[in-house]
Amino acid sequence: MVVKLEHRKISRAVISRLPRYYRFLGELLDAGVERISSGDLSKKMHVTASQIRQDLNNFGGFGQQGYGYNVKHLYSEIGKILGLDKTHNFIIIGAGNLGQALANYASFEKSGFILKSLFDVNPRLEGISIRGIRVRMMDELVDFLHNNDIEIAALTIPKSKAVEVADILVKNGIKAIWNFAHTDLTLPKDVIVESVHLSDSLMQLSYNISQRENVRKK
Amino acid sequence: MVVKLEHRKISRAVISRLPRYYRFLGELLDAGVERISSGDLSKKMHVTASQIRQDLNNFGGFGQQGYGYNVKHLYSEIGKILGLDKTHNFIIIGAGNLGQALANYASFEKSGFILKSLFDVNPRLEGISIRGIRVRMMDELVDFLHNNDIEIAALTIPKSKAVEVADILVKNGIKAIWNFAHTDLTLPKDVIVESVHLSDSLMQLSYNISQRENVRKK
Repeated sequence: MVVKLEHRKISRAVISRLPRYYRFLGELLDAGVERISSGDLSKKMHVTASQIRQDLNNFGGFGQQGYGYNVKHLYSEIGKILGLDKTHNFIIIGAGNLGQALANYASFEKSGFILKSLFDVNPRLEGISIRGIRVRMMDELVDFLHNNDIEIAALTIPKSKAVEVADILVKNGIKAIWNFAHTDLTLPKDVIVESVHLSDSLMQLSYNISQRENVRKK
Repeated sequence: MVVKLEHRKISRAVISRLPRYYRFLGELLDAGVERISSGDLSKKMHVTASQIRQDLNNFGGFGQQGYGYNVKHLYSEIGKILGLDKTHNFIIIGAGNLGQALANYASFEKSGFILKSLFDVNPRLEGISIRGIRVRMMDELVDFLHNNDIEIAALTIPKSKAVEVADILVKNGIKAIWNFAHTDLTLPKDVIVESVHLSDSLMQLSYNISQRENVRKK
């Protein structure tokens, strides 16, 4: 049974949980699981069954009561919502450790994110390849952008250079930035910025440690 | 004026915004700014002034009306809430590109996170140092944990090994894990896990790209 879905407006909170559903459903699919009840999915994901039902209601297309979810169908529907049914060419600016770590995630490719090149200012990195993908020098960037269809740029460079480089990217047609620099970027409204602030996450960890200690002292 | 604060219960939503306030206040402090109005902070952070006032009300300790916030005081109060007034020793499990990238962030040290060692299974990495911090082999891990006061372990290893290694860490006293492996860890309740799922963030970016395209088509 395939239910034709209208993609209505889905709340931000639901969207933020979708990658996690997608990850779990992908694991089930890899394990050869064809269907799963909301109860079993709930146990696996440590989310209440009612939360799961509510979230996944947004996508219709799940089986009858007593059948549970069709794993493959749901995985593919969530993938479509997340835009993973299309390919996205991307480049990495900054071929240091973090840039190389990202370049080495072959799993991004499976989700449709195709790395086309890395760029750096360090002449020692000129011409080396990571998984067969060449590192180019920053002075080749503008030409490269004009001759290739690049949608996303990952910024793995220090904060001090990030603003300047982001401006160059945007002037040359980049409309989506995956930002790892430790700063917020202020860019035109039609440019999408998704930031990963590693130290923010470390601070959340540290906050939770203090809270646990406060509880113990009481 | 120093206001003695009682650290009351603060909502999760406020807590999740604190690292960003801390980052902006730190930048102001570096720039020599002593005080700032909620209006100016609002413009800088692209958050409404009323949101800022509401959030920071949790900390008392800001100046009179017409004065604005005392940057240094507020920075230090938020730092305390986040547990950054204490030092936290940590280790990194996995000295590949991502592990080395984390080891190279000297700024973690400024916030009190002191890297004590990295561990890996790759014999080629044995004995090398990153910013003077040695990479050890995994078979030295348990002894190291017993002889050093380590609070946090960052896991920058593949998903296939993450669960097994997390169990070893927890059995040997680690109470906080900063998880970069592409899987959710199920650990005893008193162990704090903060996960950074890079592909989840890439999927959010991709979702926002599709939404923008849908809007254009209309």
